[in-house]
Amino acid sequence: MFSSLKRFLIGRPLKSTELGEQKLGKLKALAVLSSDALSSVAYGTEQILLVLSTIGFIAFWYSIPIAIGVLILLVALILSYRQIIYSYPHGGGAYVVSKMNLGVNPGLIAGGSLLVDYILTVAVSVSAGTDAITSAFPTLHPYTVGIAITLVVFITILNLRGINESASVLAYPVYLFVLALVMLIIVGIFHIINGQVPSTLHTPIGTTVPGITLFLLLRAFASGCSALTGVEAISNAVPNFKEPAAKNAAKTLVMMGCILAVLFVGVTFLAYWYGIAPKAEETVVSQLASKVFGRGVVYYFIQGTTALILVLAANTGFSAFPLLAYNLASDKYMPRMYLIRGDRLGYSNGIITLGLASILLIIAFKGQTEQLIPLYAVGVFIPFTLSQTGMIVKWVREKPVGWIPKLLANLLGALITLTVLCIFFITKFTQIWSVLVFLPMIVFIFHQIHKHYDAVAEQLRVNPNKIPDKIEGNVVIVPVAGITKVVEQSLNYAQAIGDYVLAVYVAFDRESMLRMEEKWKKWRPDVRLVTLISYYRDLITPISKLVDTIESKAEERNHTVTVLIPQFIPKKGWHNFLHNQSSVLLRLYLLYKKNVIVSTVPYRLHK
Amino acid sequence: MFSSLKRFLIGRPLKSTELGEQKLGKLKALAVLSSDALSSVAYGTEQILLVLSTIGFIAFWYSIPIAIGVLILLVALILSYRQIIYSYPHGGGAYVVSKMNLGVNPGLIAGGSLLVDYILTVAVSVSAGTDAITSAFPTLHPYTVGIAITLVVFITILNLRGINESASVLAYPVYLFVLALVMLIIVGIFHIINGQVPSTLHTPIGTTVPGITLFLLLRAFASGCSALTGVEAISNAVPNFKEPAAKNAAKTLVMMGCILAVLFVGVTFLAYWYGIAPKAEETVVSQLASKVFGRGVVYYFIQGTTALILVLAANTGFSAFPLLAYNLASDKYMPRMYLIRGDRLGYSNGIITLGLASILLIIAFKGQTEQLIPLYAVGVFIPFTLSQTGMIVKWVREKPVGWIPKLLANLLGALITLTVLCIFFITKFTQIWSVLVFLPMIVFIFHQIHKHYDAVAEQLRVNPNKIPDKIEGNVVIVPVAGITKVVEQSLNYAQAIGDYVLAVYVAFDRESMLRMEEKWKKWRPDVRLVTLISYYRDLITPISKLVDTIESKAEERNHTVTVLIPQFIPKKGWHNFLHNQSSVLLRLYLLYKKNVIVSTVPYRLHK
Repeated sequence: MFSSLKRFLIGRPLKSTELGEQKLGKLKALAVLSSDALSSVAYGTEQILLVLSTIGFIAFWYSIPIAIGVLILLVALILSYRQIIYSYPHGGGAYVVSKMNLGVNPGLIAGGSLLVDYILTVAVSVSAGTDAITSAFPTLHPYTVGIAITLVVFITILNLRGINESASVLAYPVYLFVLALVMLIIVGIFHIINGQVPSTLHTPIGTTVPGITLFLLLRAFASGCSALTGVEAISNAVPNFKEPAAKNAAKTLVMMGCILAVLFVGVTFLAYWYGIAPKAEETVVSQLASKVFGRGVVYYFIQGTTALILVLAANTGFSAFPLLAYNLASDKYMPRMYLIRGDRLGYSNGIITLGLASILLIIAFKGQTEQLIPLYAVGVFIPFTLSQTGMIVKWVREKPVGWIPKLLANLLGALITLTVLCIFFITKFTQIWSVLVFLPMIVFIFHQIHKHYDAVAEQLRVNPNKIPDKIEGNVVIVPVAGITKVVEQSLNYAQAIGDYVLAVYVAFDRESMLRMEEKWKKWRPDVRLVTLISYYRDLITPISKLVDTIESKAEERNHTVTVLIPQFIPKKGWHNFLHNQSSVLLRLYLLYKKNVIVSTVPYRLHK
Repeated sequence: MFSSLKRFLIGRPLKSTELGEQKLGKLKALAVLSSDALSSVAYGTEQILLVLSTIGFIAFWYSIPIAIGVLILLVALILSYRQIIYSYPHGGGAYVVSKMNLGVNPGLIAGGSLLVDYILTVAVSVSAGTDAITSAFPTLHPYTVGIAITLVVFITILNLRGINESASVLAYPVYLFVLALVMLIIVGIFHIINGQVPSTLHTPIGTTVPGITLFLLLRAFASGCSALTGVEAISNAVPNFKEPAAKNAAKTLVMMGCILAVLFVGVTFLAYWYGIAPKAEETVVSQLASKVFGRGVVYYFIQGTTALILVLAANTGFSAFPLLAYNLASDKYMPRMYLIRGDRLGYSNGIITLGLASILLIIAFKGQTEQLIPLYAVGVFIPFTLSQTGMIVKWVREKPVGWIPKLLANLLGALITLTVLCIFFITKFTQIWSVLVFLPMIVFIFHQIHKHYDAVAEQLRVNPNKIPDKIEGNVVIVPVAGITKVVEQSLNYAQAIGDYVLAVYVAFDRESMLRMEEKWKKWRPDVRLVTLISYYRDLITPISKLVDTIESKAEERNHTVTVLIPQFIPKKGWHNFLHNQSSVLLRLYLLYKKNVIVSTVPYRLHK
């Protein structure tokens, strides 16, 4: 039943050889991997204006130079990540770049902070989308958490079906959103050119603003940089592209950069020109759209696609997280299970982990994840800075043809991202200090995992020069509960595999002990029966003591000890409840605590 | 860690031979087993007055004849259960009596309804006690469910420590409650004799009441009968008494009956004489206490002990449920686990089941379990009626010396309880119809369990005339994941126990398959390696197909098939997370689906 439900939800399993068909073309990749970055256009301008509004309306013209600053950073990032894609076409992005050029720990810091970041992306963007839905239908408000979880589950299932299929479903909303905003910008500018927008709505650029400080401007710039989250996703997911993967990925990245630049600058410019101030109850994009188009069909189209893309931004996390986890796992810093491709060739364990973790976050914060946004921005700028620095080291070390301009691009990027990071820590320390606690913890865990795998590998290595001791004999212990067919069958098997067979009976009082000894003598005088008495009505302790005694003798003679545990396999599942599960407990106890082999002899009930 | 917590909570394990010390003397037994019955004094009178108050104050004198009716029923029940105790000294009460004299199904109906009833007792009485606590401290109101669950857990742990110990703790509150009510009655009557209570407070007995109907009086009587719930508990728990058990139990029962009669009649009489009417916000006992003593220390003493005994009424369920479950389990109508004595010689599984079930009820009804009270009263009167009828059949069948008066006692009891039951169904059908659904369901489940145990016993019976086939050989299959020490160790063991050893390797692509075959040929050319390829990256399906093939061949030759599954035993628990758990899945699949023996070879990691 479970397996047919699984089939229905995620589809038939795919052969490993069908992997190529699951890869993404440029257009689909753009949809899947840029939804996170593009969705930030919906709130980037607003973040800048929010900081400036603490001074007042007069300061709003600063949004234009700040937007240009963000644009420069965007160009630097795109150029830099383009170089990363060509240099490291196997994906892994900031993690691989930092590890290769700066060392293991910077790599792990970049990787760890990106992993956490993708979880935050999913939680934050799905919560934002849910808010949009509950704003439209206020009766749904009490079910916020439930709706958000349903959305995460839906996206998780889509991704388990395979990236190609999820790309087909998710491409439309992304393109519709781009279309909607491009329309908004063109018509908005058209109105301005036509002179339909009075220039009194805004203060001219260059107006002196009393009370403005550099600190405040930097803070506004840092807030605006939240529009750049998600830019790194493509570099992590290069292996998902159709061949030639690196080239396709680089082209997609540039395409995304151009769209992002146009949308972000366009929205910021229009917001400035139309004199829009941030309001608690209405977003900047919504105000802009209603001024440009009025509250008609086009307005609702823009609002609808915006809500949709906020939810879909989560999907970027689902594309990038499993590949990053794969990279960390193949370097033995994360559990091996992230290496395995699922039925539909995606790294299912990574997808499921991401889904569960973000659901936990949504539950923990009761769907109010806005407070996590600053954390999320920091989590992006740490790997940004590390990867740019890594590229600088690479250019200086390798000095390939034409390395100077490449170095300059990365140097510029590194300086800006480092500055943004410093601004974050200076201006928003109270909201982001926890990064300083959990990042070292994550890196510590990575190292613990690595140490364990190394230790295991060493212990498992076969020494070709040392011939292992030959086993001279096998002692088989059969715990029996009475004289039944199960016992009969187990004893036969024990005699077939063992050189010495011993039945053990644990009695709770003297009478039943004597009775059993009597009966046994008549039934199987050929098998030695050891009877033990347990006044505490406990099976495990007396059997485990007996096993100790036998084991120490067996070891001297180079014999192995096998404990045969008979187990009922009832016809119906609920019947298990009617049988003592002490055999299960005994098996686990002996397996974990004693040096014996535990064999389960099934006895199938037919009725 | 778990085991030391267990020691701390429930104490050191006791030897089976210490059982005698755990038995109850008459006074402790009275405390443990009568708290349910005695606690009903706290609400019995109120139930009668509530029905009469639909007519008006003028009808309250009817409470006196109704109380006398209840008293007659009480005497009949006590006499009847005294006879049950002597006739069936091994406990089981209504279940055993009905089964022996009326047949299996009446017995199961009585047993099933008592089991459910004890769960209801615990849930209802703990909720009532919690209400008393939150009424006193209104700030605790939001935590009602939490407090009720904590109380159930506390009582469960006390009972897991053993009945004797819980009796020592719980005896004081019961005696204090009796003391408090006796004081109330004596002082109340003293005031009346002294003429301090004006006789205008009540209408004289015999006053004509316009509008009174037989139906209403019967309904009031039925409600008053709720004071009799819990009377049967002693008859279920005879084996818990010190020797001579039956005699001690019978004496305790009579003692309880006398106390109950005095308290119930006393409270009802005083309530009538003082002209007390039921109020929503104050109980009858509270009104009475404040009229007799004023709101002083004595008043709060009475209120406090009343709250306490309501909680402790739950304990009666904990004494009687496990023994009833034991009786049903030893007749194979309930799972075998209810036969096992725990560390402290109580039937722990019964205690834990009762605790969990009542917690579930409390959660399901959010601590508002008052609506369950009618259900609970019906659940008591069904076994009452059945056991009395059973005794009638017994006397008629056996006709021992002096059977006529015994028969008459039971006949009277049977008639009254049957009448009460009919009144319940007629007057409160909407609240109790669910009994008609779940009782047949429970009886059906009892039968299903019985059928299963019978079928198992038959299948397990050894046929002494049929000598089982000798096993001619053993084929051992070892799934391998690479060339490691674990595999080396498993192969050595396989060669020791098997006549034919086969290693199986599942590859996910051709290259790794060829590579493995190459390496294997160099390493262990003596062991045959079967390589399988799984394009769907699934281990279980190809291995299980191979097992099928081998098994059918082995069966022809009378060989057994053993699958050896190597398993890592890491040093720390969390390391399990770092290893593929496919061996666990493979083991369960083969054990449940294929006819093979599954042997687990542990490989202990030392680092």
